[in-house]
Amino acid sequence: MGRKGEVQVIQTEYRYQQLENWLLQAIAEQRWRLGERLPSIRALCEQQGVSKATVQHALQRLEAQGLVEARPKAGYFVALQPRAARAPRNLARIEAPRPVTVSELFLDIMRRGAAFDLLPDLHAGDLPPGIVALNRAIGRALRRQKGDDHQYYDAPAGEMALREQLALHGARRGWQVQPEQLCVTSGCQHALFLALMACCRKGDVVAVESPGFYGVLQLLEQLELQVIEVPTSSETGLDIDALERVLQRWDIRACVVSPAFATPSGALMPPAARQRLLALAEQFDLAIIEDDIYADTAFVQVPDPLKALDTGERVILCSSFSKALSRDLRLGWIAGGRWHERILHLKLVTQLASSRYLQRGVAEFMADGSFAAHLRRQRSELRSRRDRLIASLHDWPGEIRVSTPQGGLAVWLELPEPADTLGAYPRALEQGLVITPGPLFSVSGQFRNCLRISFAHPWDGRRIEALNRLPELLLPS
Amino acid sequence: MGRKGEVQVIQTEYRYQQLENWLLQAIAEQRWRLGERLPSIRALCEQQGVSKATVQHALQRLEAQGLVEARPKAGYFVALQPRAARAPRNLARIEAPRPVTVSELFLDIMRRGAAFDLLPDLHAGDLPPGIVALNRAIGRALRRQKGDDHQYYDAPAGEMALREQLALHGARRGWQVQPEQLCVTSGCQHALFLALMACCRKGDVVAVESPGFYGVLQLLEQLELQVIEVPTSSETGLDIDALERVLQRWDIRACVVSPAFATPSGALMPPAARQRLLALAEQFDLAIIEDDIYADTAFVQVPDPLKALDTGERVILCSSFSKALSRDLRLGWIAGGRWHERILHLKLVTQLASSRYLQRGVAEFMADGSFAAHLRRQRSELRSRRDRLIASLHDWPGEIRVSTPQGGLAVWLELPEPADTLGAYPRALEQGLVITPGPLFSVSGQFRNCLRISFAHPWDGRRIEALNRLPELLLPS
Repeated sequence: MGRKGEVQVIQTEYRYQQLENWLLQAIAEQRWRLGERLPSIRALCEQQGVSKATVQHALQRLEAQGLVEARPKAGYFVALQPRAARAPRNLARIEAPRPVTVSELFLDIMRRGAAFDLLPDLHAGDLPPGIVALNRAIGRALRRQKGDDHQYYDAPAGEMALREQLALHGARRGWQVQPEQLCVTSGCQHALFLALMACCRKGDVVAVESPGFYGVLQLLEQLELQVIEVPTSSETGLDIDALERVLQRWDIRACVVSPAFATPSGALMPPAARQRLLALAEQFDLAIIEDDIYADTAFVQVPDPLKALDTGERVILCSSFSKALSRDLRLGWIAGGRWHERILHLKLVTQLASSRYLQRGVAEFMADGSFAAHLRRQRSELRSRRDRLIASLHDWPGEIRVSTPQGGLAVWLELPEPADTLGAYPRALEQGLVITPGPLFSVSGQFRNCLRISFAHPWDGRRIEALNRLPELLLPS
Repeated sequence: MGRKGEVQVIQTEYRYQQLENWLLQAIAEQRWRLGERLPSIRALCEQQGVSKATVQHALQRLEAQGLVEARPKAGYFVALQPRAARAPRNLARIEAPRPVTVSELFLDIMRRGAAFDLLPDLHAGDLPPGIVALNRAIGRALRRQKGDDHQYYDAPAGEMALREQLALHGARRGWQVQPEQLCVTSGCQHALFLALMACCRKGDVVAVESPGFYGVLQLLEQLELQVIEVPTSSETGLDIDALERVLQRWDIRACVVSPAFATPSGALMPPAARQRLLALAEQFDLAIIEDDIYADTAFVQVPDPLKALDTGERVILCSSFSKALSRDLRLGWIAGGRWHERILHLKLVTQLASSRYLQRGVAEFMADGSFAAHLRRQRSELRSRRDRLIASLHDWPGEIRVSTPQGGLAVWLELPEPADTLGAYPRALEQGLVITPGPLFSVSGQFRNCLRISFAHPWDGRRIEALNRLPELLLPS
């Protein structure tokens, strides 16, 4: 490939190298686009008049460069290209702690955007086999109700059978947790609410990722907590240096962080940053609220939770089944560390209990391996959807930057200035499209030229058509 | 019956009078105890050698005196006797507003007592047909899930089909409510939490019934609200005169009241008191939080809610299916009046949404008449259980006073001093019995000699045996 002006003398070129170069060129010309399947090995043999071993050799070399991806029993697919890997810049400024005021427009966006979908009226696709199995397990649990079971409230911590399964699920990620350290909630937002209520008091300052999850900002507003936004990269997550400067300057009670595929950035926090975060928590007497909700969507390997490293019981892990299984279950969990008893009390006082038959059904679904099978199927599906989305962004005019998350359900886009995604929101809505503008992920007016786009839903024709309408809505012509 | 020493000259006595007196005597001697069935009309004809018309005449006279009760197709039953009708006295003192501190022991009691059962490990009885129908309806709703339904969150207000059914249910009680004015919650405790969070701010004073529901006291503590307890009678509920004096003296933000079969008193607030309460709310700019959870258990007629009289949108009605249908559903509702939008926002921020398939199942269960049928069956069952409980209290030594609620799930007992129900709690627990001591229903240490006993569960042999062990535990020998 050589630098410009350099004379390349290629004495001999093996057949596999010729094939490799031909494939590289064809991918660069987008003969097959990101996420699309290459011709089969047999087809390549025939087309190029080479042996199977030669084709395999060339493909393995491309795979090693990260340009194609092998999927068992499916073939080779075009993987991320250099252009797509240009990540959004780290834009967030650091501003002093402040109370949170979320506008009415933001509330409207949050209400609609909760569906995580550009086209929320589409309702396409088939019920995945995992959901069919889940519904059957819940149905069986319902039919097993007997006597006056229905006359009892569950214990506030939740059904032991489910907590046992959750503990096993944690153990697979290097997290040794006892069922007694867990509390079942009505989803992750409920868990975050309990966590913040347990470790903060009105007026306390909470550090959050910027850009970060709007649901947390809304909670801070309602609980009358102050916020400080810490710059967050779409590759490595929360900027620990920035956090340290913030902690040295202000008195911070808690930090909400999403080390695994944070929304909107999709970042995965590296191990060293995790260690530093916990050391800072110890040094500055911080509570760490870990939003772990996207971990199970990991495309390759589910990362260990931050909580697994938590020797000081300072991490409150919050999660739910909403992103990796079903948003309609309304089941989540929280591991409250040193705040566990207080969290149980708050769960009891604000909601009494969760439904036992539902928890039993989900516990059985986990115990018989159906949950793991569902996650396996879903991961490659999600990765394809991500690739399909990023590929289509290549057609957008102008210079855009996009995250390439290894898990989660969305990419984060940085559009050329002066794009105004918030201004585009009502125009999109007129066309039946719900977009998630960048400023939703901050309270300081940043990220006006940024946008989160979800790949949670299948890219059927109408959704692709909707996606293709976005450049006109978003980009200055 | 005459006073002692009085000479009774009975000139003539009709046959029906003779029979009436004979029945009165037999009831007084407890030949049939409270709640038991009298011999059939045919059997009485044969035993007493009288005509059917004579028996009917005598029974109707006893019924008019409230001593027996006719139940269609079942016969005549011994109803409340004068001794049983001696209601607990109105003991509550008025003390200045104060912050709420609930002890750890209270928390333990609340956790265990949530089961509302003396013998929580018994799990006796059969699944009622209403619950079987409910579970089937939920199962059908699960099976109807399709496409990517599971990928969407419900709107914060909840599923329209359920809100429509709840509005119809309200209309049958003289309450004209639109589905758009309702919000679905995770039970009544969750509704009460949303209500208090919506209309109060930290430090505000909230008036509550005394004795009143411990769940509210716990909520006030967690939300850092102050409480003022207003004396409450076991017959007419909240003492409106006392409330007026309280309002004249202190600045009160909200009043939590349970006009229909309040726990623990079981009181039903008379119409005039309701009108006065709403007038006071208007005069003193009060929010009224109506806990309506027991209304559907009414033994005779479901009373109209206070909310039906609320022209100023000052009443926030909170309820759920937990008492009249199933505690494991975890479904409730709230009609927030002028605070409706704020409540929707709080629901969204603290929990996002409720489960749609579950709401659809319950909506169908209501729409096909199964809920109404369940309530009809349950009412006479609950009344019998109440009567059976009160009858057994007759055997307790000493002078006890007991409420005779016309709905709800519990009676309120006043034991002779120096009974100490709180002191008896750990002793009862050692025997596997969970009692609900009076002081739980107040934060001021009152009601030490009082006790709530539930009749929510069937009186099978073991539960009766448990009940019979209470006098020894509770009464000073």
